[in-house]
Amino acid sequence: MSQKPSIPKGTRDFSPIEMAKRNYIFNTIREVYALYGFQQIETPAMENLSTLMGKYGEEGDKLLFKILNSGDCLRDISDEQLLERNIPRFAACVCEKGLRYDLTVPFARYVVQHREELTLPFKRYQIQPVWRADRPQKGRYREFYQCDADVVGSESLLNEVELMQIIDTVFTRFGVRVCIKINNRKILSGIAEMIGQADKIVDITVAIDKLDKIGLDNVNAELAEAGIPAEAIEKLQPIIQLSGSNEEKLATMREVLKDSEIGLKGIEECEFILSKLKGSLNNPIELDLTLARGLNYYTGAIFEVKALDVEIGSITGGGRYDNLTGIFGMPGLSGVGISFGADRIFDVLNQLDLYPKSAVNTTQLLFVNFGEAEADFCMKVLQSVRAAGIRAEIYPDAAKMKKQMSYANAKAIPFVALVGETELAEQKVTLKNMETGEQQLLTTEELIKCIMHNVEWA
Amino acid sequence: MSQKPSIPKGTRDFSPIEMAKRNYIFNTIREVYALYGFQQIETPAMENLSTLMGKYGEEGDKLLFKILNSGDCLRDISDEQLLERNIPRFAACVCEKGLRYDLTVPFARYVVQHREELTLPFKRYQIQPVWRADRPQKGRYREFYQCDADVVGSESLLNEVELMQIIDTVFTRFGVRVCIKINNRKILSGIAEMIGQADKIVDITVAIDKLDKIGLDNVNAELAEAGIPAEAIEKLQPIIQLSGSNEEKLATMREVLKDSEIGLKGIEECEFILSKLKGSLNNPIELDLTLARGLNYYTGAIFEVKALDVEIGSITGGGRYDNLTGIFGMPGLSGVGISFGADRIFDVLNQLDLYPKSAVNTTQLLFVNFGEAEADFCMKVLQSVRAAGIRAEIYPDAAKMKKQMSYANAKAIPFVALVGETELAEQKVTLKNMETGEQQLLTTEELIKCIMHNVEWA
Repeated sequence: MSQKPSIPKGTRDFSPIEMAKRNYIFNTIREVYALYGFQQIETPAMENLSTLMGKYGEEGDKLLFKILNSGDCLRDISDEQLLERNIPRFAACVCEKGLRYDLTVPFARYVVQHREELTLPFKRYQIQPVWRADRPQKGRYREFYQCDADVVGSESLLNEVELMQIIDTVFTRFGVRVCIKINNRKILSGIAEMIGQADKIVDITVAIDKLDKIGLDNVNAELAEAGIPAEAIEKLQPIIQLSGSNEEKLATMREVLKDSEIGLKGIEECEFILSKLKGSLNNPIELDLTLARGLNYYTGAIFEVKALDVEIGSITGGGRYDNLTGIFGMPGLSGVGISFGADRIFDVLNQLDLYPKSAVNTTQLLFVNFGEAEADFCMKVLQSVRAAGIRAEIYPDAAKMKKQMSYANAKAIPFVALVGETELAEQKVTLKNMETGEQQLLTTEELIKCIMHNVEWA
Repeated sequence: MSQKPSIPKGTRDFSPIEMAKRNYIFNTIREVYALYGFQQIETPAMENLSTLMGKYGEEGDKLLFKILNSGDCLRDISDEQLLERNIPRFAACVCEKGLRYDLTVPFARYVVQHREELTLPFKRYQIQPVWRADRPQKGRYREFYQCDADVVGSESLLNEVELMQIIDTVFTRFGVRVCIKINNRKILSGIAEMIGQADKIVDITVAIDKLDKIGLDNVNAELAEAGIPAEAIEKLQPIIQLSGSNEEKLATMREVLKDSEIGLKGIEECEFILSKLKGSLNNPIELDLTLARGLNYYTGAIFEVKALDVEIGSITGGGRYDNLTGIFGMPGLSGVGISFGADRIFDVLNQLDLYPKSAVNTTQLLFVNFGEAEADFCMKVLQSVRAAGIRAEIYPDAAKMKKQMSYANAKAIPFVALVGETELAEQKVTLKNMETGEQQLLTTEELIKCIMHNVEWA
């Protein structure tokens, strides 16, 4: 046989069992999004490069998969330009389309392009693959799904509140214990204002984050090394050592940031969100000042979710941003969104073995094929069985019994129906429970009832 | 405002209402596939060009979207080669990946690559987009979904039978009246054998297809023009004028093809399939000798589905093929499959207005926002409402009533809940039916019951 075919590095095939698990994840997220009034949209895999370029920084531009123009792709490039071998310039001549890098920029493009048809606030969700020419490594793929929900055109903090409820509901349905972390960009801005150096926020959050590991003295030393004056470090002490309940933390912050208008606004926003959520979540929500993801992008609330029982990075994140559509010439639209990390959630559910059996079982009943006359009868029974909503199949060939049974085992089919001469004479079916080995001779109606009653493990 | 952003020609955005309709189509097909024991797989959007090239003919190769290699894509091409401007050779140097053109070749690649993990027969379905650099035109897109189901590794005709049942079930669920057409490549081979010229099959089927329009004499004239000898045309007469029930047609064919072994095999296969289906379908199934789709590809049964109440091309097709995986060095695997044309089915359901309301309604209940105290109460009610599975939302801002009501109208939300001072004092909700205008003051439990009872139109 010739060499086995393969797929591009960083991409994956999904087998039936993986698909069943992934569908369980996507369907759960989809259902909860819909429960909160979010509507699904889809955008094309390919966007014009003019839409994508310059939106993800210089590094991001390099990670875009570009599509060679069809037809004479070298038409618009001179011999001199060709020989110059300037890759970005060359690519700009031969490619005008690229694969989407995330769902946010296509969504912004969608909102601007369709603004006349949209009624604001627009609550949309989108579950589609994205592509990045990243160096493939464990857990990082060149094609992966994002599951985003965003509300644009409303500045109300109730949107933040509902997004936290969505996160809580989704992980409750998964049976995964999580901690929801919340911060606010305005609080971080207030801290920066207080120490007089806006560009030091990242140094500060990184240092604070190390408190448990390296201790207070070393944190302070790092801050001094980062060029933060002694007086500012002194003022930061209550923030570095911040502890207690969310209320206690906010009270401390309010004191520290009492001279910063923006800082106080951030505290107020956090207080609003936390107070509205009080008593409504199954999972803990915690104010965490070290949370600074997408700092240049978010302008208000920042969220992140950590699994409590599995060592893995953030499994969901999001935040409030202003001016999403400004890049496409439509300013002044505020939005807030979250994104579930489907691949990591897949790993978490696998590690904790949390997939419900009903979600991963496919065929519930296999009819063994003993020959044409028997198969004819089975086909008739199959019609009734399927009309009752039972996923069932007949082995298409009258193969050896052993082969048919190993097919049932390979597909993890929980029930097998046997129709031989005796059953055929009686117009009945012998039903075998593959887990217990138990066998029963049943009419079609009894067969259906029996499987429906066992539906929780079929 | 700067120029509106746009998407590449031949691609589409799908709005919430379009997505709801498409999901209804995909979910229906998915459910029926699963009912028959088919399991879903997914393959990456990008395949190696070595997998794709040469599988769709020269024309097909030109229609592949190729992805520019990341990094220094000009590394492997000399100045001389660059200046040669030979597009196929150039593309082969700078691109090693392409977007999939259909789901069949990736499926064949999947089967060969994963053959050690697979238990045959393998019944898989796959619903994913494909990309073709076709000239965009009405109803033809550069990105569109295919919905394929195939069984490989079984030569049993029960597979054909079940695929016809799947087609029948899917269109019954859609409420679309169709005619299922069936033919067999072996019958066509028999006819070619009979007239001594295999390459004339297409001419013959094309001519026969015109009988209704141009009449028998003109059909015979066309056949003669195509170079078919008078004696052969004489023999073809019963085939050209073939009519009556499937049984009558098969009887005629059996007589005409009595000297062709392969022709008789084809008739026998058709008879088997039709006899097993007898009385089990809601839609008519008809033997149609003019059916010759994918002639070079199919080796046995050929299927096609036509909508009876809408003028549109084939909305589903398929057939039996041998040696699917031979192109990847794994010979001898027979398969049979079907593919639903989602875009055309979408058009048919639109034209006939067949979407069930429950499938296209998104949010069922909107809470009007009258201010913070009222919203607090609504948020509590919302928790119970959503826990009951009702898709509900609150307008996030305390905007003018008119604005909130037009939001409900734009989203076609059937129920609106009003909580003002009076309701707040009573801890009740005024429910307004947006269709009838009727209003009722209800407790949370009554509200839930009322909406659940109206679920068929919410």
